[in-house]
Amino acid sequence: MIRFGGILENMSETSSDWQRTTIDSAQAAAHPETAKTVAQIKALRQSIDNIDSAVISLLAERFKTTSQVGVLKASAGFAPEDMKREDYQIERLHRIAIEAGLDPEIAEKYREFVVTEAKKRHQRIAEAGGDPGVLDVFA
Amino acid sequence: MIRFGGILENMSETSSDWQRTTIDSAQAAAHPETAKTVAQIKALRQSIDNIDSAVISLLAERFKTTSQVGVLKASAGFAPEDMKREDYQIERLHRIAIEAGLDPEIAEKYREFVVTEAKKRHQRIAEAGGDPGVLDVFA
Repeated sequence: MIRFGGILENMSETSSDWQRTTIDSAQAAAHPETAKTVAQIKALRQSIDNIDSAVISLLAERFKTTSQVGVLKASAGFAPEDMKREDYQIERLHRIAIEAGLDPEIAEKYREFVVTEAKKRHQRIAEAGGDPGVLDVFA
Repeated sequence: MIRFGGILENMSETSSDWQRTTIDSAQAAAHPETAKTVAQIKALRQSIDNIDSAVISLLAERFKTTSQVGVLKASAGFAPEDMKREDYQIERLHRIAIEAGLDPEIAEKYREFVVTEAKKRHQRIAEAGGDPGVLDVFA
């Protein structure tokens, strides 16, 4: 709490206010001492937004690709789940996360997220008799 | 169940086996009729792995960037949470997901995942007095 003290007094914020700080121009104008920090945060946020745009594009391609796998699996009678494939992905993503300087725990959470969503969609495709049909729009 | 029937007989699999199908060369060799499908799935999986490599690299950059935001927020006394920023991200990611042909539900789950993890790390940085220190290795 101590480290918030000075700012709290300057900004006349209540305890609940600082829990949900909004970084905006009005705040910066009212408190010139924080304007530089706000500008730095805005620049970093633009980079974060650019990264997110790239990730969303890649996720779109990933789900289009796993949708094709889902159709093939359903047509051949393969189940949505493949434990050997998952073990391979766990090891691989852990390794490339370390190389990239990313906490491998984040990589594993990413894997769980995309694999879970892909399996759900594979199941839907199988239940639709192997034809993604309208499901394919966002499968 | 019916659509798995023929495959089940051919492959002499038990009910529990098909629930966790492993796509490998041995299976393909034993069942030439499925070899083509297996080859197609393998090719698609290589694309999925390539996409994952790109996403992991981007996530590494994203968390390095949000770590910098965390340090700035802690130094200025800003809280980890910023609801206005989150509302902006929700609207933006929904929009670019639609454009990319990705289910916006997936985009929102991605956002929740990265924002939750980033906030956890911002909190740790704040608790460490604004110095990410050793936490920065994977912050």
